[in-house]
Amino acid sequence: MPHTDTICAISTAQGGAIGVIRVSGPEAIDAASRIFTPIHGKPLHERPHYTLTFGKIHDANGEVIDEVLVSLFHAPHSYTGEDSVEFSCHGSTYILQQVMSRLLENGCRLAQPGEYTQRAFLNGKMDLSQAEAVADLIASTSAATHRLAMNQMRGGFSKELSTLRDKLLHLTSLMELELDFSDHEELEFADRSELSQIASDIERTVSRLAHSFSVGNAIKNGVPVAIIGETNVGKSTLLNALLGEERAIVSDIHGTTRDVIEDTVNLRGITFRFIDTAGIRQTTDVVESIGIKRTFQKMNQASIVLWMIDSTNSESTILNSEFRNSVSDKRIILLFNKSDQITPEQREALEQAFADIDAPKLFISAKSRTGLEELETLLLNTAALPEVSQSDVIVTNLRHYEALVRALDSIHRVQDGLQTGLSGDFVSQDLRECIHHLSDIVGEVSTDSVLQNIFKHFCIGK
Amino acid sequence: MPHTDTICAISTAQGGAIGVIRVSGPEAIDAASRIFTPIHGKPLHERPHYTLTFGKIHDANGEVIDEVLVSLFHAPHSYTGEDSVEFSCHGSTYILQQVMSRLLENGCRLAQPGEYTQRAFLNGKMDLSQAEAVADLIASTSAATHRLAMNQMRGGFSKELSTLRDKLLHLTSLMELELDFSDHEELEFADRSELSQIASDIERTVSRLAHSFSVGNAIKNGVPVAIIGETNVGKSTLLNALLGEERAIVSDIHGTTRDVIEDTVNLRGITFRFIDTAGIRQTTDVVESIGIKRTFQKMNQASIVLWMIDSTNSESTILNSEFRNSVSDKRIILLFNKSDQITPEQREALEQAFADIDAPKLFISAKSRTGLEELETLLLNTAALPEVSQSDVIVTNLRHYEALVRALDSIHRVQDGLQTGLSGDFVSQDLRECIHHLSDIVGEVSTDSVLQNIFKHFCIGK
Repeated sequence: MPHTDTICAISTAQGGAIGVIRVSGPEAIDAASRIFTPIHGKPLHERPHYTLTFGKIHDANGEVIDEVLVSLFHAPHSYTGEDSVEFSCHGSTYILQQVMSRLLENGCRLAQPGEYTQRAFLNGKMDLSQAEAVADLIASTSAATHRLAMNQMRGGFSKELSTLRDKLLHLTSLMELELDFSDHEELEFADRSELSQIASDIERTVSRLAHSFSVGNAIKNGVPVAIIGETNVGKSTLLNALLGEERAIVSDIHGTTRDVIEDTVNLRGITFRFIDTAGIRQTTDVVESIGIKRTFQKMNQASIVLWMIDSTNSESTILNSEFRNSVSDKRIILLFNKSDQITPEQREALEQAFADIDAPKLFISAKSRTGLEELETLLLNTAALPEVSQSDVIVTNLRHYEALVRALDSIHRVQDGLQTGLSGDFVSQDLRECIHHLSDIVGEVSTDSVLQNIFKHFCIGK
Repeated sequence: MPHTDTICAISTAQGGAIGVIRVSGPEAIDAASRIFTPIHGKPLHERPHYTLTFGKIHDANGEVIDEVLVSLFHAPHSYTGEDSVEFSCHGSTYILQQVMSRLLENGCRLAQPGEYTQRAFLNGKMDLSQAEAVADLIASTSAATHRLAMNQMRGGFSKELSTLRDKLLHLTSLMELELDFSDHEELEFADRSELSQIASDIERTVSRLAHSFSVGNAIKNGVPVAIIGETNVGKSTLLNALLGEERAIVSDIHGTTRDVIEDTVNLRGITFRFIDTAGIRQTTDVVESIGIKRTFQKMNQASIVLWMIDSTNSESTILNSEFRNSVSDKRIILLFNKSDQITPEQREALEQAFADIDAPKLFISAKSRTGLEELETLLLNTAALPEVSQSDVIVTNLRHYEALVRALDSIHRVQDGLQTGLSGDFVSQDLRECIHHLSDIVGEVSTDSVLQNIFKHFCIGK
């Protein structure tokens, strides 16, 4: 169904030398022609596709609002697949608002967040997982997030899913062919063990994709690292040191997470999300308190726990066994901070006191920035994120992950059915379900509410 | 002198769906070709002028950084007058930085603030006053500032100056022709009274332009309004009410003023700059204090003084005569705030108490928003800014104003010389000086340091 209305939006951020306004829809070129006059030559609607035209935008009284460059796109060869016009204006908020008013007066309406990309999806320019990658691409702040988003936008994930669905459809058609001839009870078009083999191949691929989410999510939202320690052990100093050293990108990525991101630090291309915890003041009676409960909660959200200890005042930090046990399943790194202020004997004593804790131990000084490089290496090794290349298919989107888990569930039922000799129509139904969940990812079976939920996280003008 | 280096910059603000990178200079198209591959068809340097090309930007390893649209401009038909390329990228800071890195690796250098416009000026695409108007246009936040900047950018001011200079050159050539024949003492090519007439025409025009600066400056930087009154008379409430009612644009315009702008409110297209003053606590002994001195200073900067009085507690506000005298030369508006809390008798008493002050008086309530419309009308009338049309030439730039004042000085000396029968070579020198000052405005005689000073106030990418 083609859209009958024409949308417009300012696609650039406020401030800057240039402001771009995008218009898309059947009336785009007509609306643009009504407010824009080229300096030389033919009117807009007589000009060829993919050309630039310099001219004036005027108000209803003929006064010049701006001198602009217009980019012209004819359907279907545009981002949205519709007739489109882009105005490159002077980057004045006043001018951009005036041009928008002119467009609204001339039959356009204001675009919803992500509506251009939504139209690109609805017009078949990209599938849903590609459309979702556009938002990730814009939000990308590191080489790794950029690489994953770019691969997804360029269809890497879609291709992998398409191969899977072809296999599933083949399997389904074999099963359903049998059902058509179900009065011939002896008839089996496909060897059951061969079917099992195909199902197992599919199961392996879907499972690999679903598992890649833990990596994809860590790359996209940052590896969560909880910093545990008493007040004044130097947590903030450490964070600032890491931030300063690495020209860290601190960001609150729109539409990705609503968690409070305390500090996001980009270490050698990998994003770490540092979760600060309330300093622990006493080691004995504090376990029951709300503060320590919150600390435990935050620790549970983390993949890595940095346990910071003040080397010059370590007696109180020898946390009780309950605490030690609770972190035992986490990947812990013990940091002895302020280690430039202790003697070698004190250092040895510290090592002995914490000897029973099976975790990497590092003597650092956040203030004088010693040991930070080792800490970075240790964090990267502990996170153990694989190098991601642009051709790797890694799931970064919770919606995709959930669909994959559901698909995996269906394919497990298929496998069980084949093994227990379940009737073909049951197996076939599970196969159909599996296909449905995979189709959900690329948007072939998506409902309006799903689409709305996806595109509302986009920025306006995209 | 053509530029030999190629510059690049991100021309859009951070954030937003689209980010634009501009490249300009002799290597622009070559550099772009090295990092960009079209999806279809010919390479960039074989494509025609004023076209759009869709393709991929890749890093040194061939990995895709982004899929972008490229706009192509051949010298001299570009903004700068040089070969130029614009990349319309996804609005990710990471992507934009990567594309910039690629350009820097391939022979471009980072552009200075305003360098594109500076090149446009140096390549004869616009004169200096037009170039300066580009920054004003981008900073424009109201219909009036926009109109003035647009007229200046489109050459309205330049045309006026050009007419003036033609007249001056005519006058000069007549004077100098006489000098060439100076041995024939009796020879006068031009009737002295006719020359006086022309000089007087010129004087009138330059004088009008110089005087327009008070209006131009008020439009550009806002009409300065000082709010005077004791603490708690409702100054902040009034400001907020004005802001809220009019969806005011509060801005700190880059490169226009370094004053502290307390609050800028746009009332019916005219910008008012409200200068808040320390509340005056006591009426008797405070005159000597620092607080009141500052208040007087701020009052002197203002064109309008809003003298706010608490209607419910006016005894202390009956300021002493010294204060009254000091504001007598200002355009004062007396505001009786909280007037919804007094009786008609109290109102009459107030009117009598302030009867000797020759100023408009208004009973308002900032809190309940009564009388605000009248206040706005009063402010607009008191500011008495003329309606500005897009064809009016009004000086908004301090540099231009100063050049005009110097030109006026020269032309006054010319008039004196003509009147007192001064020797032609002296008059001629004053005429040359006048031409010089006017040429300064359009940049015909500008030094590098003048240019540097002008363009450093631009944003990068313009």
